[in-house]
Parts: sequence; C-alpha cells; structure tokens
Amino acid sequence: MPPTNRQVRLAARPSGLPRPADWEFTSEPVPAPGPGEFVVAVSHLSIDPAMRGWMNAGRSYIAPVEIGAVMRAGGIGRVTASEHPGFAVGDYVSGMFGVQEYATSDGRGVLKLDTSLAEPTTYLGVLGMPGLTAYFALLDTGKAKEGDTVVVSGAAGAVGSVAGQIAKIKGCRVIGIAGGPEKCRLLTEVFGFDAAIDYRLPHLRRTLRELAPQGVDVYFDNVGGEILDDVLTRLARGARVVICGAISQYNESEVRGPANYTMLLVARASMTGMLVFDYADRYPEAMAELAGWYRAGRLISRETVVTGSVEDFPETLLKLFEGANTGKLILAI
Amino acid sequence: MPPTNRQVRLAARPSGLPRPADWEFTSEPVPAPGPGEFVVAVSHLSIDPAMRGWMNAGRSYIAPVEIGAVMRAGGIGRVTASEHPGFAVGDYVSGMFGVQEYATSDGRGVLKLDTSLAEPTTYLGVLGMPGLTAYFALLDTGKAKEGDTVVVSGAAGAVGSVAGQIAKIKGCRVIGIAGGPEKCRLLTEVFGFDAAIDYRLPHLRRTLRELAPQGVDVYFDNVGGEILDDVLTRLARGARVVICGAISQYNESEVRGPANYTMLLVARASMTGMLVFDYADRYPEAMAELAGWYRAGRLISRETVVTGSVEDFPETLLKLFEGANTGKLILAI
Repeated sequence: MPPTNRQVRLAARPSGLPRPADWEFTSEPVPAPGPGEFVVAVSHLSIDPAMRGWMNAGRSYIAPVEIGAVMRAGGIGRVTASEHPGFAVGDYVSGMFGVQEYATSDGRGVLKLDTSLAEPTTYLGVLGMPGLTAYFALLDTGKAKEGDTVVVSGAAGAVGSVAGQIAKIKGCRVIGIAGGPEKCRLLTEVFGFDAAIDYRLPHLRRTLRELAPQGVDVYFDNVGGEILDDVLTRLARGARVVICGAISQYNESEVRGPANYTMLLVARASMTGMLVFDYADRYPEAMAELAGWYRAGRLISRETVVTGSVEDFPETLLKLFEGANTGKLILAI
Repeated sequence: MPPTNRQVRLAARPSGLPRPADWEFTSEPVPAPGPGEFVVAVSHLSIDPAMRGWMNAGRSYIAPVEIGAVMRAGGIGRVTASEHPGFAVGDYVSGMFGVQEYATSDGRGVLKLDTSLAEPTTYLGVLGMPGLTAYFALLDTGKAKEGDTVVVSGAAGAVGSVAGQIAKIKGCRVIGIAGGPEKCRLLTEVFGFDAAIDYRLPHLRRTLRELAPQGVDVYFDNVGGEILDDVLTRLARGARVVICGAISQYNESEVRGPANYTMLLVARASMTGMLVFDYADRYPEAMAELAGWYRAGRLISRETVVTGSVEDFPETLLKLFEGANTGKLILAI
C-alpha cells in the first residue's frame, strides 16, 4: 500500500471562530514529482492569525482559500523526492505547503534552510515570516529610531516578541502589551522589554500614561479593538501607528473601528498598514541582520510547539485566538 | 455714551449640538489700545467646524475655550485705533479676534490683507486658513500627484472645495462627495470636479466603484463616519487617507470609528492627521501659489455670507452641521 497524504480542507466559510464542521479531512496518495518538481514531507506547520482572514470571502491582499481546497499554511519539511535541479532529497525547506503531510512544489517561494545556524523551526519564527514582518513593520513602516518610545501589542506573540526585541536593539524604550502575568514576565525577563502591561487588568490607559509620560512614538499593533483605541489617546506628536494585524477582530462579525482615530489629527500622527510580501526583494538584507542578531544571542526565539497530526490543525488554530501561545505557534506533525 | 463691544461667550460645554443655553451674550465698553496694541472693528466672522471641538474639555491640539470666555473665532475687520507701529487705522486685517464686535491685538497671528487682489472675505476662505489647509493637506500630507484619483468629502465646503480645485490644477482626477443635487452640480459645473457623488443617495460604495474603478489614491476626508468607511473599501494600493476633519462626528457623544480601517493593511495604505498650524513657516509660499491661481481664475472662491450681528453666531454655527453652506460660511456683522 503506497503511503497516503492526509490533508485538511476548508469545508465551509466560518462565521466567528472556526468550528469542526468548517473543516474536512481527506487523504490522497502521496504525489510523485513531475519534471522540475519535488515533494516535501511536511514536519511542522506554521499557525498564523492571518489564516482566519484567508478563510473569508471578499477582497483582501490574497485570494481566499477556496471551499474544498487544502487549507493554506506555511510549513517546513524535508525533500523526499526531487526532479528539480535546485532541491535534493534531504534538504530542509520552508514554503507555503498547506495543511497536509506531503506537498509538491516547483520551488517558487520555497527557501532552503541553513540548519547549521538554527533549528529548522526557527525559520517559522524569528528567522521566518514573523521575523521579517517585525523587521520591516517596525523599521520601515514605523520608522522606529533610537530614543523612541515603542509600544507593541500582542507582544508575546510571534511577531510582537521580535518587534519588541528589534526595538530594544535599535535603542528604543519598549513597552509590551500582553494577556496575563506570565506573558508579561516573559516580556521583561526573557525578551528584555522595559515594561509590560497586562491588558486583562483594568486601567490600561492610565498605566500607559504612567509608563510613557512623553507619549508613544511608535505603536506596533497586532490586535486592534479596545487596546488600539486606548493607545491612540497616548500618541506623541508625529507618532506612527503600524497596523500589522487585528487579531481581536478576526472572529467578530462586526469589526470595532477605532473611535479615537481623530487623535491622529490631534497628534499629527499616521496609521499605516503593511504586508511583508511587499518587501520580498529586501528579505536577504533583513535575514542577514536577523541571523546576525540571533547568532549573537541578541534576538531570542520562543516557540510553542504542539505535537500531533494534521487532524489537530483545527484545534491548534483556536489556541491562537485564546492567546494560548507565547512566541510562534507551531504544529509538529 | 461710548460705543459698546457686544460679545458671545461660552456659558456651558454642550453635549451634542450646541443649544442656546450654552451661550451668553455680554457687552463691554470698546477697549482703547495700549502701547504696541491696536483695536479692530470686526466685520466678518469665520464659522468653522473646528469650533465645535474647541468647546469641548479634554486633550486636543489647542486648549479648550474656557467657560465664560469670549468664543474663539477667526475674523476680518479694519483697524480703528492703533498704538502699534505695524498697523494703521484703516488697515484690513485677519486674525483670531473672537466672536465680538471689537478686538484688541498686539499683532501676533494677524495678517494685513491685500484688498487689491481680492475682496476681504476671500481671506477667510480660498486665501485664508481653509485654502492653506487644503493646500498642505492635499499636497504634503496626501502627496497628490498628476494622474492620481482623488476623492474629497465635504467637497462643497470651505476646505473641500479648494482641495478639489487644487487637485484638478495638479492634474488629478477628482471626485467630490457632498449632500444634495445642488451641491453636486456646483462641484462639477463651478469647481470643475470630474464627478460628484450625493451621499444622501443610496449605494455610495457602488457609485464610487464605478467612478474610480482603479481605486482611490488620495482620500481627503472632512467628514468621518459612514462615508470614511465606504471610501476605505475602495483604496488603491499605497493610498493616502488625509484626516482633515470629521464633521459628521463632532456632535456625537460616541464617535463612530472606521470599522474598515483594516483595509489600510489590505491596500498598504496610510491614514494621517494634519493641522495647518504646523505649516506656519510655509504659509508665504502657499499663499503666493494660491493667490496666483486665484488671480488667474483657476481657483474659484465661494462664500455663504449670513448678515446679522454677533448674537446670530450660535444659530449660524448650526448651519454648518446642517450642511447649509457652500464654500466658506461667514457671518457679516
């Protein structure tokens, strides 16, 4: 019996949090590579907040996952068969392989991983899309510079934890916002943030005023909702708000718009959306800098790895929205 | 009996639309100028949406008007007495004279008007703060350039009508949003906009999609609310949203935040607040350019002048929020 490729497909467009009925488990024979192709045995799936958006119909920065299609997902794995000159059996690679055990690829968008520098999973976090997102969002969109007060929400997450660490490397004063005392301790004791605010406690706005009496120069927003509104009231003149994500709103049928957006006018501030894909031609320079900081121990990688099978994907995805992870959430299969 | 100076003072902070009880009418002797001062007989008051914000307590870009103080207002008038070397009796001047018949000034922030170029009231509109605001918001904050599709809300108002005309001068395609068929006709037939959308009709979003199939490069927002949310869904990649005002929200106890702000992410767009005061050192260059366009007939001035006394100020202010004016709303006293 040939090995099978177990897959998770989108069965229906969810409203609110995805439910079991929104998914379908299928199984196919493992494909053989055609000319110029190779096959990857996926070992780790990247679990991303953006996945929730990909499940919706409607205009976005990327086409929705079609009903019946294998769920889109980044992942890493090893090449098990190759008819591609650039990829050999045994190579560690990362790419958009989908929620399945085996993927066929022509090499587009696939990176070979330098496992002498870091564990493969690091390429799903600090040295992967989250790291690149944090890098460009903070430095290019947010224009963070030495002496700035930088506030990061979702600060214990994959992107936020890197954003805060880069801001520290660049000489900023960094305040992280996260949920619960454990994550807040992690921010200051492991990631080196100057201060942490537990958004589950009352008086976020007052605490922020005390911690950033001169106002916030860069707000790196991963969450949206009430926290965004609170931080908007504390912007310094000329502040930059980077809209990197809005995880608090992804499962809401009605998004809460930031009622305090007119503070942009009061503070002569900007709010800018960014997508890491726009920086593809600058990935190498960013990767070199991130890898240098990682090697020097200045950038710490944290991952929450759930071990299971592709069938555990639906439940693992929900952990993101519960805030159960610190650093990058990964499903090892 | 010496002449008296009739004044309108803020009696209470309004909630919602200002009511008669929020104002107090007082009367004082006309002041005599001290050394380095002069006295202006105010002939015209500038009626501005921003006035509503000045009546609120709380953090803003300018201190609130104190309870019991003469209401803050821009105006023009003639010097009637002077102990100031730079201002002579008979000079036409503009400045923040307040809602009163006579104002004392030391000359700070006061401009002498070139009445050979334009009627004095023009310096409250096209050649005044509204013109300067439109100029810097469109060209500096919004970075409008030839070939851009520019959408202006509040397009028949003092700032919007100038913004749209400057955008046309700069070679943009310009769509104005205004309330009612008369204003919309004015936009296309007098101000030279390429198209106008009546926001009172249904399907604003669909109309905008038809008129701007490639999306909106610059959105010059004076109104906020539902219209802002609608335009956010039509942003072109890299679009600039300029937050110049939010007149639809100034009298609301709860501001409607733009729920579609995450479209900033989809479009890699920015939303930036601006205040004209930050450009004070560039007023001369802008005034020279505006005056040149005005003289050449490329920039048309429209004013809605209400004739009355300072006691008509409270009612005249309400006209703004009813959208009763086209171009600059002025109270001639």
